[in-house]
Amino acid sequence: MDTELIRIGRRFDARGWVMGTSGNFSAVTGRDPLRLAITRSGTHKGELTPADILEYGDGRVLRGEGAASAETALHLEIVAARGAGCVLHTHSIWSTLLSHRHGDEGGLAIEGYEMLKGLAGVSTHEHREWLPILENDQDMPRLAIVVRRTLADHPSCHGFLLRRHGLYTWGAAPAEAARHVEILEFLLESVARSKEAESWRS
Amino acid sequence: MDTELIRIGRRFDARGWVMGTSGNFSAVTGRDPLRLAITRSGTHKGELTPADILEYGDGRVLRGEGAASAETALHLEIVAARGAGCVLHTHSIWSTLLSHRHGDEGGLAIEGYEMLKGLAGVSTHEHREWLPILENDQDMPRLAIVVRRTLADHPSCHGFLLRRHGLYTWGAAPAEAARHVEILEFLLESVARSKEAESWRS
Amino acid sequence: MDTELIRIGRRFDARGWVMGTSGNFSAVTGRDPLRLAITRSGTHKGELTPADILEYGDGRVLRGEGAASAETALHLEIVAARGAGCVLHTHSIWSTLLSHRHGDEGGLAIEGYEMLKGLAGVSTHEHREWLPILENDQDMPRLAIVVRRTLADHPSCHGFLLRRHGLYTWGAAPAEAARHVEILEFLLESVARSKEAESWRS
Amino acid sequence: MDTELIRIGRRFDARGWVMGTSGNFSAVTGRDPLRLAITRSGTHKGELTPADILEYGDGRVLRGEGAASAETALHLEIVAARGAGCVLHTHSIWSTLLSHRHGDEGGLAIEGYEMLKGLAGVSTHEHREWLPILENDQDMPRLAIVVRRTLADHPSCHGFLLRRHGLYTWGAAPAEAARHVEILEFLLESVARSKEAESWRS
Repeated sequence: MDTELIRIGRRFDARGWVMGTSGNFSAVTGRDPLRLAITRSGTHKGELTPADILEYGDGRVLRGEGAASAETALHLEIVAARGAGCVLHTHSIWSTLLSHRHGDEGGLAIEGYEMLKGLAGVSTHEHREWLPILENDQDMPRLAIVVRRTLADHPSCHGFLLRRHGLYTWGAAPAEAARHVEILEFLLESVARSKEAESWRS
Repeated sequence: MDTELIRIGRRFDARGWVMGTSGNFSAVTGRDPLRLAITRSGTHKGELTPADILEYGDGRVLRGEGAASAETALHLEIVAARGAGCVLHTHSIWSTLLSHRHGDEGGLAIEGYEMLKGLAGVSTHEHREWLPILENDQDMPRLAIVVRRTLADHPSCHGFLLRRHGLYTWGAAPAEAARHVEILEFLLESVARSKEAESWRS
Repeated sequence: MDTELIRIGRRFDARGWVMGTSGNFSAVTGRDPLRLAITRSGTHKGELTPADILEYGDGRVLRGEGAASAETALHLEIVAARGAGCVLHTHSIWSTLLSHRHGDEGGLAIEGYEMLKGLAGVSTHEHREWLPILENDQDMPRLAIVVRRTLADHPSCHGFLLRRHGLYTWGAAPAEAARHVEILEFLLESVARSKEAESWRS
Repeated sequence: MDTELIRIGRRFDARGWVMGTSGNFSAVTGRDPLRLAITRSGTHKGELTPADILEYGDGRVLRGEGAASAETALHLEIVAARGAGCVLHTHSIWSTLLSHRHGDEGGLAIEGYEMLKGLAGVSTHEHREWLPILENDQDMPRLAIVVRRTLADHPSCHGFLLRRHGLYTWGAAPAEAARHVEILEFLLESVARSKEAESWRS
């Protein structure tokens, strides 16, 4: 698991999705009781080492030095609601931009793109994906409740945006979660540039 | 052949043209009977291993685990119509954008660029390349027929776009097909940004 | 220290922030008397070797061949005013663009972004960062005085821009300074693209 | 020399400036008689091997298999007129775009940018660089004459653009020529994006 999260970090760093020490990743390592491998707070995701991946469970760090990501509560909500095996959170330019532009509408619809088929369970470009947008909040317990409600209200969504903050997505395993990041980032850039193109002189 | 497809995958991944598990590649390994090396469905093209390249022929996978790309039928049409030795399919932001913008016109003309000379048989920037755009379709046998007709109607085209889906191009060998991807992607970005520049204040 | 500056150079080169031989980096190696490791003038920051990092103190190069960066005086002002352990100067497209666009206003406010929390001491996206913009000047002693006054006038700023020139930021150690570059560059691109998006047809 | 050209090719490929098999590089290896190391026609500049660098002199290939770049005549004009030790030709999106937009004016002025100081002999951002733009032409002897006249008419220019084709620049040695490519490409992108920004809503 750790090796996979480290490799994902390098890949996402190359794309500019985890600048500074932004982003955080987790993978479920046990279900009963629930155990997570989760990135240490304040690490650069492009330069992770095994020591930067903590074991978390029973509400605390069980193994490793330092604090788990401040957003651990959000990871736990997603694991509980979706049975996800991996949760990935990234910060990109396009997710930041669109999360604000469509923030007042509470979400963003994406449809008509072949790339939608890269989302688990989607078999046609005619699929309509609703990507909820949540107001950003530094109060993690409060934000966790909003995440729980959002996941309940949108049982088929594959991710959500935090306004002017970034993307959360997940998957059964790290490879699927990483694929969802790539797919959603591709779609967000496509949506943004297409919107821009509508302003070109015809 | 396998090594070449693996290297092409890494190169295209670095450019963001095969995000998620998108895209698929094939190379002809025998002509009589026809044999293809083709990427396994659902693989990440930036992380291909030899086991991800299947041998295909006589309408089925002859060697390797897993299914051939769902779009194998399109590869076969191109090999048959053009005698291509390699077919490459990629998903980029610019091909996605322009395939939709010009979709209703059925294609896109590109002319006046020196880079056109990177297309096989083109010796001057004054060449006019017509890049056909086909409606996207999840019904592969039906889409294969449209591909066949398009290739017949445009005997000198070097590639085509599927609407909001991506680019297909080909070549006598992997190196030529990869060059065509790079050339066409460069030209598509140039066309899009030039169109954008027409809207700048003069 | 040298190894860290070399690695930072490679990272920033990959992002296009130190094109040509632009940019310069320093790290404090002693406080009493003050000693700096600083990049030699005219080196490519993506290809630094240990020989390209000079020891500087008492107003001159103490160890190594060649001249210290022409902008050493600015590094010294920042170290003195902020107690910084590392000063990094980069040239990016977005800092160049925004430093000119907002140059007449003397600075640029950035607020509302989660990424602001990557700046030392910032704990909420509601933080408002004022990034001062100074007129570019080839007279280094004169520019050093302007830098000193700017740092005094804006005691909580994390960096500043030189108009049509680039970004200066700093940190307690190389890792923090590098994080500030990544954070500020992300924010500058976000601000610029958001401004652009305001012109899209709604 | 060969090693330097190979490394430059890898660097420029990573930036997308030598897509397909575009671009060509040369370095002077002897002055009397004149000898050039020059890239073989039809090679990918990101994957050069020593065998792809030919020795050229007395109007023909002296060592190596294959043909010298079709644009060898232009390299020779630049070496003769400027005493250059290295000539680099690249194809980028921004040079393609601006060479067309400003083609009718015969060139493009760049001034006010700190990055101008990366051009040999320029010591202030107040420098005004005139980058001539030549009409593209497949007739190399004729184009060589236009290059010769352009270099005579603009004795202090550091490069020129071929319309919808690309950039030529040079330097005393490969490192300086490569620096000029990076500097001019940075400036061209800056000029283009600044122009774009003028259209943003104020």
